[in-house]
Amino acid sequence: VQHRTRIDLNADLGEGFGPWQLGDDDALLQIVTSANVACGFHAGDPVTMRRVCAAAAERGVAIGAQVGYRDLVGFGRRRMDISADELAADVIYQLGALDAFARAAGTRVRYVKPHGALYNTAADDPVQAGAIVAAIVAVDGRLPVLGLPDSALTRAAAEAGIGFVAEAFADRAYTATGRLVPRDQPGAVVTDAAAVAARAVAFAHDHVVTAVDGTTVAVTAASLCVHGDTSGAVELARAVRDALTGAGVQLAPFAP
Amino acid sequence: VQHRTRIDLNADLGEGFGPWQLGDDDALLQIVTSANVACGFHAGDPVTMRRVCAAAAERGVAIGAQVGYRDLVGFGRRRMDISADELAADVIYQLGALDAFARAAGTRVRYVKPHGALYNTAADDPVQAGAIVAAIVAVDGRLPVLGLPDSALTRAAAEAGIGFVAEAFADRAYTATGRLVPRDQPGAVVTDAAAVAARAVAFAHDHVVTAVDGTTVAVTAASLCVHGDTSGAVELARAVRDALTGAGVQLAPFAP
Amino acid sequence: VQHRTRIDLNADLGEGFGPWQLGDDDALLQIVTSANVACGFHAGDPVTMRRVCAAAAERGVAIGAQVGYRDLVGFGRRRMDISADELAADVIYQLGALDAFARAAGTRVRYVKPHGALYNTAADDPVQAGAIVAAIVAVDGRLPVLGLPDSALTRAAAEAGIGFVAEAFADRAYTATGRLVPRDQPGAVVTDAAAVAARAVAFAHDHVVTAVDGTTVAVTAASLCVHGDTSGAVELARAVRDALTGAGVQLAPFAP
Amino acid sequence: VQHRTRIDLNADLGEGFGPWQLGDDDALLQIVTSANVACGFHAGDPVTMRRVCAAAAERGVAIGAQVGYRDLVGFGRRRMDISADELAADVIYQLGALDAFARAAGTRVRYVKPHGALYNTAADDPVQAGAIVAAIVAVDGRLPVLGLPDSALTRAAAEAGIGFVAEAFADRAYTATGRLVPRDQPGAVVTDAAAVAARAVAFAHDHVVTAVDGTTVAVTAASLCVHGDTSGAVELARAVRDALTGAGVQLAPFAP
Repeated sequence: VQHRTRIDLNADLGEGFGPWQLGDDDALLQIVTSANVACGFHAGDPVTMRRVCAAAAERGVAIGAQVGYRDLVGFGRRRMDISADELAADVIYQLGALDAFARAAGTRVRYVKPHGALYNTAADDPVQAGAIVAAIVAVDGRLPVLGLPDSALTRAAAEAGIGFVAEAFADRAYTATGRLVPRDQPGAVVTDAAAVAARAVAFAHDHVVTAVDGTTVAVTAASLCVHGDTSGAVELARAVRDALTGAGVQLAPFAP
Repeated sequence: VQHRTRIDLNADLGEGFGPWQLGDDDALLQIVTSANVACGFHAGDPVTMRRVCAAAAERGVAIGAQVGYRDLVGFGRRRMDISADELAADVIYQLGALDAFARAAGTRVRYVKPHGALYNTAADDPVQAGAIVAAIVAVDGRLPVLGLPDSALTRAAAEAGIGFVAEAFADRAYTATGRLVPRDQPGAVVTDAAAVAARAVAFAHDHVVTAVDGTTVAVTAASLCVHGDTSGAVELARAVRDALTGAGVQLAPFAP
Repeated sequence: VQHRTRIDLNADLGEGFGPWQLGDDDALLQIVTSANVACGFHAGDPVTMRRVCAAAAERGVAIGAQVGYRDLVGFGRRRMDISADELAADVIYQLGALDAFARAAGTRVRYVKPHGALYNTAADDPVQAGAIVAAIVAVDGRLPVLGLPDSALTRAAAEAGIGFVAEAFADRAYTATGRLVPRDQPGAVVTDAAAVAARAVAFAHDHVVTAVDGTTVAVTAASLCVHGDTSGAVELARAVRDALTGAGVQLAPFAP
Repeated sequence: VQHRTRIDLNADLGEGFGPWQLGDDDALLQIVTSANVACGFHAGDPVTMRRVCAAAAERGVAIGAQVGYRDLVGFGRRRMDISADELAADVIYQLGALDAFARAAGTRVRYVKPHGALYNTAADDPVQAGAIVAAIVAVDGRLPVLGLPDSALTRAAAEAGIGFVAEAFADRAYTATGRLVPRDQPGAVVTDAAAVAARAVAFAHDHVVTAVDGTTVAVTAASLCVHGDTSGAVELARAVRDALTGAGVQLAPFAP
């Protein structure tokens, strides 16, 4: 019996607000297997949340709560010195709000992923990472959290005994130690579609990536993050999907 | 076998926001059997919602979602011409957010009550009443809605087949046809504590109230609404509770 | 001495918010002579307001305060039952905020125009119309208000002794009595670019429009409103501008 | 000719929001000579801003713009990593909004004071301090900024050539080098009313304070900050005022 290679594709969805659109939700829902749906704090209004949850449920795309700082104008991209209690309550609130739309669509929220500055802070700061995890434990400890491998969030999840799902980025450069090259450094982003697609396949098949110094580094990730905020991004995401399926990789949500 | 008279006492709780307090949540939790907890749109921040849900759960007070218009500065007291789809999504969002705190406290949201201008609009406007009910049906059709008897909301609930719980106001004057005397008319509010307490007992025991013209009117209500936004209001609520228990009325949530 | 025909072209600008864009501000600034700049309540964040004011000032485009209901998610398109005191304070706030950006750009706010549901309400409701006018009087009674001719706002401005500037819509159908055909009626919007341009010239030159019944109706307007929320809208606005200048009409702000 | 000793008393005012009150604005307006009025980002709704500006103008109390982070639920007490451009635009927006109410009350905003976490950040961080100062320069470079002496904000003001007004705290302990003892250290706050009043007089008369080690430290401040968020705080502020006037100190706004 052969075990078939399998990976999840996740992307941010539902990041419009009221009259404003961002990204192409419908196109992404035909590409990804997991949808990180914005929950109203950094983006995402209730009508959009309901529509995206219904469409995701219909296509069998897993719904995750993309939780962020309460900062619409800054799109959750500005770090905030928020206490653990405040952050935990904010995460519970967002998770619950989205879950109601998931339930209305006949499914449930399957995981949590921090957004923007909270994503970055949760990778470094044990207090904020711990608050996100504590919120999940308070609501439903069976929900895993999706994030950067080997981060403060990874450790907080392990300590609390909840699941952690590592993600990789086919369009980001990696160092020889398997870390992301910071965005402000040259070559941090891989733009060639063929190269990105090939890296996606390498992640999925062989759990490796070619680092900036040419060495091959092991990176284990159960999910690949793709983007959809520009038409070029959607094309790239589709190329990644096509390369993976062409290489015999099964695309499926990591969440049951 | 004697059937013991029983009624529910409900009040608005958790109506602070961030640094700002409103009403005395702790005092009210020792008086009421059902807490209409604000869900963040007209009042209620996540930290407050979490605290109130935990305290209510600990005391066995039923948690209801007090849903309102998205209008913090106006405290949800200003009617908005919002579409049925927008309102339904807003209600689902608020209901889900509060339910996550209820779950974190080991319980669930047991009912929904519209707040302020939405309460008044839902009593008259079938479109907005229908949107509230549709939201409940979408999330969990077993949840009843608490509101004004014989109103558009009553009818919307009946049409959708969800429960409707009628409430009465011991401190409000009633017309001979059993309607509330509008607040802008003289004598609309009963301020004498003994009178209010006596009216509460009349509602609970005999399902009647003495109208402004002196006649006795039948009013069937499974819950009495009390207030807690001033210290005087809390005293009045306590007087109502004491009078009811003194008269042998059992106080218990209407929700199972 | 020949008096040259002259008209103003106004459009809504700065209606993005944070990460979200709406309309093409740069394209519109090359077309219009007056910019209705969103002030943060229905749209418009401070960074955008600053950028648009600077660009408008550089091009000699007059800056007007596009004031709206405090309803970001609804884009100010939902009528609110707001008191005169609340609305007046909201208008003063928005007007002052925008004026600071105008001053930073070396100019000042030159006029006020209500947005969305407030525009419509101010056309019918003397209370809300009066509140807008009272706000202008409180800050600077020399500022005119731009709106629908022969409306509640027209009358409120007249009563308060402030200027009223009437606008017309080259892409909207008019009744034989010179009123706009409501949007929900067939033929309410004129879509043919040549027809719209011809109507613009008729407004500017002859102060008339051809009504839906074919009759010619007098409409006196010092400004024509154009739109820029789609690329087609920008093209149409440019066609209107070209037709007007081609017909020898001078385009200039109505405000000094 | 004798030069009479003179100092300003400032306090935060208008920090309610919508239905919520905070502090006793009316009591404080009878005590202070400068009112730091909240501008809507961390607190302060338009109706409150209008009322406070009118009352301050009537009493001859100078109006200052108390600018903060856009964080209502956190009351501006949480540091945000906001870019200089964003912060400058936020300050211009708040300053302009308040100035409109000041103009409506027949006066103008006379100074700017950062609030909460922005106050603390502006004392340490040259980028955010510079952004506040740049905003003032953009709107009206004659406006001084009120803040912590010998801070990043002091230096930013000096570099930009705008006025800086130093404030002292009669109820806070000082180190032997003239810095505030951090709030999380024991003895950071002086609670004895007589001691606070005596310290206020020492600041005003002799420009000194007794440090925690008993030494006398020179502190030059043109304004003393008092608080009004509790009834005890108002009493303390009144004691400070009475002690100062009893000692022959003239109380007057620092702003012309």
